[in-house]
Amino acid sequence: MEIEDWRRKIDELDRQIVSLLSERAEAAQAIGKLKRNTSLPIYEPNRERVIFENVRAANRGPLPDIELTHIYERIIDVMRALQREELASKGANTTRSGDRTGE
Amino acid sequence: MEIEDWRRKIDELDRQIVSLLSERAEAAQAIGKLKRNTSLPIYEPNRERVIFENVRAANRGPLPDIELTHIYERIIDVMRALQREELASKGANTTRSGDRTGE
Repeated sequence: MEIEDWRRKIDELDRQIVSLLSERAEAAQAIGKLKRNTSLPIYEPNRERVIFENVRAANRGPLPDIELTHIYERIIDVMRALQREELASKGANTTRSGDRTGE
Repeated sequence: MEIEDWRRKIDELDRQIVSLLSERAEAAQAIGKLKRNTSLPIYEPNRERVIFENVRAANRGPLPDIELTHIYERIIDVMRALQREELASKGANTTRSGDRTGE
């Protein structure tokens, strides 16, 4: 395969990754709504650990676990920002600074 | 769906995302090898722009384009680090600091 073939493959992979990230964001939003409507605790520190463990367990390379973790730190940051905007737009209590993942 | 159902869905999505990121890393490695073995220019500044345009065009929400771009900045950083390690391990010229994407 030539460079242009690999780039076309990367572009197709990126479109699939974007689609999955969108689905993931919708699920994070759904959890945010459920937390708002129930008495469940907002802050669940173990959840972030579970996410990273799941990601590392699924990793078959060639990316080292630490690099994949770097990507997931950013993904979790972005999902948290999305939930914060959602909470703020609903006028909910936004002093939940202890909520690391929101998921 | 309850919170636990959504979390199971997120964990499954994450396994799929990890798999696609691994495929993407393999493609980036393949491009790195082709560049090493050909006289093609290493630095192609338009390629990063094409990646971001492709990602934004594929975005159907709920993540804003800017947040998706934040995730992709990290993905591109990580892929570049992987290529640098590969080049360094092969004893190739590592003064290619102008190569933003490597892809």
